Amino acid sequence: MDFARRAWDHSFPFDPIVRTLLDTDFYKILMAQMLHEKHFNDFATFSLLNRTTGIRLAETIDMGELREQLDHARTLRFEANELIWLRGQTFYGQEGMFTPHFIDFLRRLKLPDYELSADPESGQIRFETHGRWCEATFWEIPLLSIVNEMRYRAILKGMSRSRLDILYARAKVKLYAKLERLAGLEGLNLTDFGTRRRHSFLWQEHCLLTAAEVLGKGFTGTSNAYLAMTHGLEAKGTNAHELPMGFAAICAPDDDQCLRDAQYKVLQQWQNSYRGELLVFLPDTFGTSQFLADAPQWVANWTGARPDSKDPAAAGEELIAFWESRAVDPARKLIIFSDGMDVALPGEAPGPHDIPAVHARFHGRVRLGFGWGTMLTNDFLGCDPADGGSLKPISLVCKLTAANGHPAVKLSDNYRKAMGPPAEVERYRRVFGSAGVADAPTLV
Amino acid sequence: MDFARRAWDHSFPFDPIVRTLLDTDFYKILMAQMLHEKHFNDFATFSLLNRTTGIRLAETIDMGELREQLDHARTLRFEANELIWLRGQTFYGQEGMFTPHFIDFLRRLKLPDYELSADPESGQIRFETHGRWCEATFWEIPLLSIVNEMRYRAILKGMSRSRLDILYARAKVKLYAKLERLAGLEGLNLTDFGTRRRHSFLWQEHCLLTAAEVLGKGFTGTSNAYLAMTHGLEAKGTNAHELPMGFAAICAPDDDQCLRDAQYKVLQQWQNSYRGELLVFLPDTFGTSQFLADAPQWVANWTGARPDSKDPAAAGEELIAFWESRAVDPARKLIIFSDGMDVALPGEAPGPHDIPAVHARFHGRVRLGFGWGTMLTNDFLGCDPADGGSLKPISLVCKLTAANGHPAVKLSDNYRKAMGPPAEVERYRRVFGSAGVADAPTLV
Repeated sequence: MDFARRAWDHSFPFDPIVRTLLDTDFYKILMAQMLHEKHFNDFATFSLLNRTTGIRLAETIDMGELREQLDHARTLRFEANELIWLRGQTFYGQEGMFTPHFIDFLRRLKLPDYELSADPESGQIRFETHGRWCEATFWEIPLLSIVNEMRYRAILKGMSRSRLDILYARAKVKLYAKLERLAGLEGLNLTDFGTRRRHSFLWQEHCLLTAAEVLGKGFTGTSNAYLAMTHGLEAKGTNAHELPMGFAAICAPDDDQCLRDAQYKVLQQWQNSYRGELLVFLPDTFGTSQFLADAPQWVANWTGARPDSKDPAAAGEELIAFWESRAVDPARKLIIFSDGMDVALPGEAPGPHDIPAVHARFHGRVRLGFGWGTMLTNDFLGCDPADGGSLKPISLVCKLTAANGHPAVKLSDNYRKAMGPPAEVERYRRVFGSAGVADAPTLV
Repeated sequence: MDFARRAWDHSFPFDPIVRTLLDTDFYKILMAQMLHEKHFNDFATFSLLNRTTGIRLAETIDMGELREQLDHARTLRFEANELIWLRGQTFYGQEGMFTPHFIDFLRRLKLPDYELSADPESGQIRFETHGRWCEATFWEIPLLSIVNEMRYRAILKGMSRSRLDILYARAKVKLYAKLERLAGLEGLNLTDFGTRRRHSFLWQEHCLLTAAEVLGKGFTGTSNAYLAMTHGLEAKGTNAHELPMGFAAICAPDDDQCLRDAQYKVLQQWQNSYRGELLVFLPDTFGTSQFLADAPQWVANWTGARPDSKDPAAAGEELIAFWESRAVDPARKLIIFSDGMDVALPGEAPGPHDIPAVHARFHGRVRLGFGWGTMLTNDFLGCDPADGGSLKPISLVCKLTAANGHPAVKLSDNYRKAMGPPAEVERYRRVFGSAGVADAPTLV
């Protein structure tokens, strides 16, 4: 019995899910620096969206407690040691990546105010925040980890002690079996991308420490900045859909050319700030095929790409064909697969998102990286003895929905993943076309 | 990280201090059986009294949380396994001590309703419960352990993690040093009497398990029925002041002879129910000296005595002289010292309540037993690095204050420990005299 721990635990009115602003994805900080420098006066709206509509989140989670957790997150500030780490640490081999000006901004940063309500009809949580883009962007990850962890706390509440015990034991066994399969892959480059949909902070920590132990140098870091700092791991990440979505949204309403150029303008600004391994483009915001077809040659010279909403084999082949068509050697290019990746257990048939299968297909043909998210830090499928499906992860996102008052749109390579007001989506589809877009079921 | 434990802890809205009705002193159950059998229609009032008036309890403890804890205690019932243990266990070598009729009563028992308020003037908690004596009597121990533990939780709240860590480390070191001193005492017979004023349930458990390990067969059991059951220890205890107090209070208001006889009538009823080692009288309710002077010869034939409010050396010598005056060999008689006992640490001067000192004086002259209470399960003096005195135990009691509507009175061997309305105390002093009564400062 750790008496001090027990007494210490009693000093908190509740158990905060997010305890530091650095408990976020590293790419939010990279993007925020660019937004702070070049888009300080652009304003953004971020909203929560649960794509798993069958799960009525507002009826599972106590809305009062949710508000308590969110309000607690708003009391957080970047701590001195965290800012020193950001300032002094080498990221992707680059020193002094963050400017003193930006560090000063982070020192004063707090999460902007938000609106929260429950929609009685859909049973979903309505969350919206509005503020300077470079500030509001920081809500994404804490919001998602808070809502996800609160959902799991609610499900676990009321389970008996032994049911919980076997649940966690099975999840540990499952994780270990997956890691053992990965351990055999030659030249593995696997990163934890699981912050946003993790089961809980402590479980994510458990998963990544176990991965680091089992995979050795095949485990190359984590997207979680706080865990990277705490455990001496590499902080990983580049950029996300919100950049091209926002750049497009702030175009004049009838300026189709501005829309078309937005996806490349993002990259132009990005390469002014970052170099080397950070030059990884995300091609699918408005459809990968049109993006590659119209891309300027300098895009082909970037270090790599992160396909996100297309079948991995098809996406990889498409990228290789793109580089070959631009007379660039694919073997020197990096592809990071990070969309719904997983590892089949022994005896299971590997699906299209199976890391070993994708590795087998592309290893040696390109430089490979894997960003393993939900199914690394939140795989409890079949672990609950009473209900194997009770802990199935949901497809929860926090997306840019408007910039400077104009609605934001995402098309993606998956028809059903499109987001935005229908009229705007139609307009974007007219501008960008729908070459190579599939109607595949959405993966988590 | 014990994930299951953490998730399990989340399923409770608060951390209950008392989790079973069996978490009480064994003597309450012994007394209740007699009361149930012979005094089922007598009604009693029990009240809380903090003799350490400088500690304004109602301002330290959150009254809403206190009510929550007390209401939770009222939801508890004796569990089937607990009743089986009471029914089947051998206590003091006696089988079948509890009748099926009484076990049935326990099965249905719940703590009676209570009144709770804060007195703004004294800063004290007012607690009063009224009901059948055999039911209301069960409030004493849970009430005291709840109020005490809530006080410590309130004090500990807000201490830093490292301050808590050193606090508990020092308390463990101190406990161990005391136990090592006791381990050398020949024929030691030491019992835990520390439930009512314990620091916390878990700390009491830690203390008694450590005592059992260090003292071996010198540690002879615990007054806590639940801990005795759980850890296979002997449950210990006999009877308390409430019996003669109640017997006296239910006398007709002008019947002085009934008052004088009450203290012996209790023992007559007791020996109808119990035998052997349970025949230990508590002589000090209305003053030890008058009790012994007027005692019938059969009282001298009881197994032993438990002096409670007199200097231990004086009390022991007085009992030995009593037995000798009745032509009874003191060496065959048992004295249990249980009032404010403690153990001086190496380098400290032993006080009158020092167990080794009392042992040195009486070992070989009588059969000796020690009931070690507050300073076994709640010694944190000097353990808090910031304030050595912050955790000093308080003298908190829950006493019978009326029976069948008549006020109850206790005189004790300590003038300042007298309890009851002043006019009644005066009447009792007239009836019983004040031979041998001291005006010593009250010990915890």
